[in-house]
Amino acid sequence: MTAHAAPREVEFFWDVTSPYTYLAATRIEDVAAAAGVRVHWRPFLLGGVFKATGNRPPAEVTAKAGYMLDDLETWARYYGVPFRFPSTFPINSLLPMRAAIAVDEEGHLAPNDYANAVMRAYWTEDRDVSQPEVLTEVLAEAGLDPDPVLDRTSAPEVKERLKALTGEAVQRGAFGAPSFFVGDKLFWGNDRLPLLEAWLKGTLEG
Amino acid sequence: MTAHAAPREVEFFWDVTSPYTYLAATRIEDVAAAAGVRVHWRPFLLGGVFKATGNRPPAEVTAKAGYMLDDLETWARYYGVPFRFPSTFPINSLLPMRAAIAVDEEGHLAPNDYANAVMRAYWTEDRDVSQPEVLTEVLAEAGLDPDPVLDRTSAPEVKERLKALTGEAVQRGAFGAPSFFVGDKLFWGNDRLPLLEAWLKGTLEG
Repeated sequence: MTAHAAPREVEFFWDVTSPYTYLAATRIEDVAAAAGVRVHWRPFLLGGVFKATGNRPPAEVTAKAGYMLDDLETWARYYGVPFRFPSTFPINSLLPMRAAIAVDEEGHLAPNDYANAVMRAYWTEDRDVSQPEVLTEVLAEAGLDPDPVLDRTSAPEVKERLKALTGEAVQRGAFGAPSFFVGDKLFWGNDRLPLLEAWLKGTLEG
Repeated sequence: MTAHAAPREVEFFWDVTSPYTYLAATRIEDVAAAAGVRVHWRPFLLGGVFKATGNRPPAEVTAKAGYMLDDLETWARYYGVPFRFPSTFPINSLLPMRAAIAVDEEGHLAPNDYANAVMRAYWTEDRDVSQPEVLTEVLAEAGLDPDPVLDRTSAPEVKERLKALTGEAVQRGAFGAPSFFVGDKLFWGNDRLPLLEAWLKGTLEG
């Protein structure tokens, strides 16, 4: 057991296609704020993580898939947040996650505004944010000019940046979403928020 | 959203070979007591559950296995309970779980005494409880006469009872351990104890 320095930030690797990431996203700012820590929102591609690690979506086991839906709804009620399982799931999140990179470049937006808008659209309003026309609306709702962002999603630097972030997460040990890092300490899953909170507050050492 | 009747008990399906079950076992009596609910300890065979559902142990994914060890140690510190990953893992839990059935038949023991003794031996003292000589010691430590219990583990009724409980859990939707049932509502995993607690207290409806 070793003491760890008071953390300044928690990195939150998120992908809009992950329901537990949506749930965690509704809580992470409060959890971090309670510890006086900032959240660094980092887009990545869950499909790329699964491919690199050999991990697979939980819903591939039939009994688990049935439970998962009830579990998600139970968590949403526990948190007091809206939740509606989308009629199209999973989605190819390449476009909305590239858009997240492009939005990050802009630098004039709170880091979580687009993230929350796109997750809310997919996880509470059953809007398929992998479709360019839906994403256009969501970007506008987040206060952004959609066209320049959508244009940037096809730029090589943007594509490479998303790949690089995904590779970085995998290299540091991530195998699913949401993944939280505090330095080199990984917390995986919405259900680890209580551990993350204790860790950020310094009441849990390791 | 529908109200549910105040629950009288929570069923706790446990198998000694599951580390997250050990962690949950250290908390479940307190969680249930806080809601004025009793715990019904029900032995089952996780291997049989995996076989029936096609689910697989989390540690089969390399990156997940590395995380899991750190995660378990982090939970143990969070709970303030001892934990030591055993040098033999997983074990064939057939004998210790049949012994749990035989102990249940005796009816003169608090339902969780043997369960806690056998999980403590495996998860904090690195003792391979699948071995008859180790199990003999553990039974004695739990205040039981080991020989009659071990004799009963080869009785057809005991073998059938463990199979039946495993089949019942699967039929009701379980696919892993620990599995908690409150009526037909399933909570899976040590990390669902906060949801279970809210459910038992009636502060979470569904």
